Amino acid sequence: MEAQSRTAHAEDPTLAPSNVTAGPWGAGEGQDACKDHFIARNGKLFAGSHLIIDLWGAARLDDLTHVRETLIEAVRVAGATLLHIHLHHFTPNGGISGVAVLAESHISIHTWPEREYAALDVFMCGDAEPMKAVPVLQRAFTPSRIDCDELLRGEVNE
Amino acid sequence: MEAQSRTAHAEDPTLAPSNVTAGPWGAGEGQDACKDHFIARNGKLFAGSHLIIDLWGAARLDDLTHVRETLIEAVRVAGATLLHIHLHHFTPNGGISGVAVLAESHISIHTWPEREYAALDVFMCGDAEPMKAVPVLQRAFTPSRIDCDELLRGEVNE
Repeated sequence: MEAQSRTAHAEDPTLAPSNVTAGPWGAGEGQDACKDHFIARNGKLFAGSHLIIDLWGAARLDDLTHVRETLIEAVRVAGATLLHIHLHHFTPNGGISGVAVLAESHISIHTWPEREYAALDVFMCGDAEPMKAVPVLQRAFTPSRIDCDELLRGEVNE
Repeated sequence: MEAQSRTAHAEDPTLAPSNVTAGPWGAGEGQDACKDHFIARNGKLFAGSHLIIDLWGAARLDDLTHVRETLIEAVRVAGATLLHIHLHHFTPNGGISGVAVLAESHISIHTWPEREYAALDVFMCGDAEPMKAVPVLQRAFTPSRIDCDELLRGEVNE
């Protein structure tokens, strides 16, 4: 259902060569309920898994359409629900800053093409699997090095 | 100039009680240049300061207008430039997820009102001062506890 609504609302990316905002997806389809319930794993209860990801020696960091499609693919592969996406294309260096807001939290990306560096974070709650986004990023941007740390957000003792 | 453009584009928040998207700000005013140049501090060179902030025992986490105004104020106080803001109000728990995209990176917020918990991150590059956002959050949400860790993103040895 999520893929269907995305298609229905999708803009032709070639028509939006600069900044892109799209969404909402999933509205009016009974998907508005919060999907970010707390997670129980290995005896821990926490709000969500927050991946801090750095890409070095990466390519295509100034390609807005590619970045947009990669974020959408990362959301899909992680099993998350896309609500809204916004990317900003800077001039003159071609850097891109943007976020995908999810029913399960968000993905952000900030790129410095001149340094072949990108800083991302992938924060997902509920049943989504943020680690599955990492190979998508690896394939899309072919970094020579990728660093990924996981933070457990909102850990509680109950 | 930034405040002026914000006023010019501002919507009456009472007209947008549910999901809110606003922006772009700063477009067409010569502000589109990337403001996220690398930072030199204490002999280190890095892309930006990324604050991971948790609020516990916090109030007004289901108040969309309040959350929106707080993010805008945090951006202003930190000396950053707001490009785009999107907040999503979930039902039935009243939780809010959203992001402010900045010329210097982003602020995100995800709230769980039923647990009086909010997870934020404040990522700023260039000359902005993300730590100045923390007292704004403290005043706005009056948490009984606030945790804040700083990650230096994209640190390089040059």
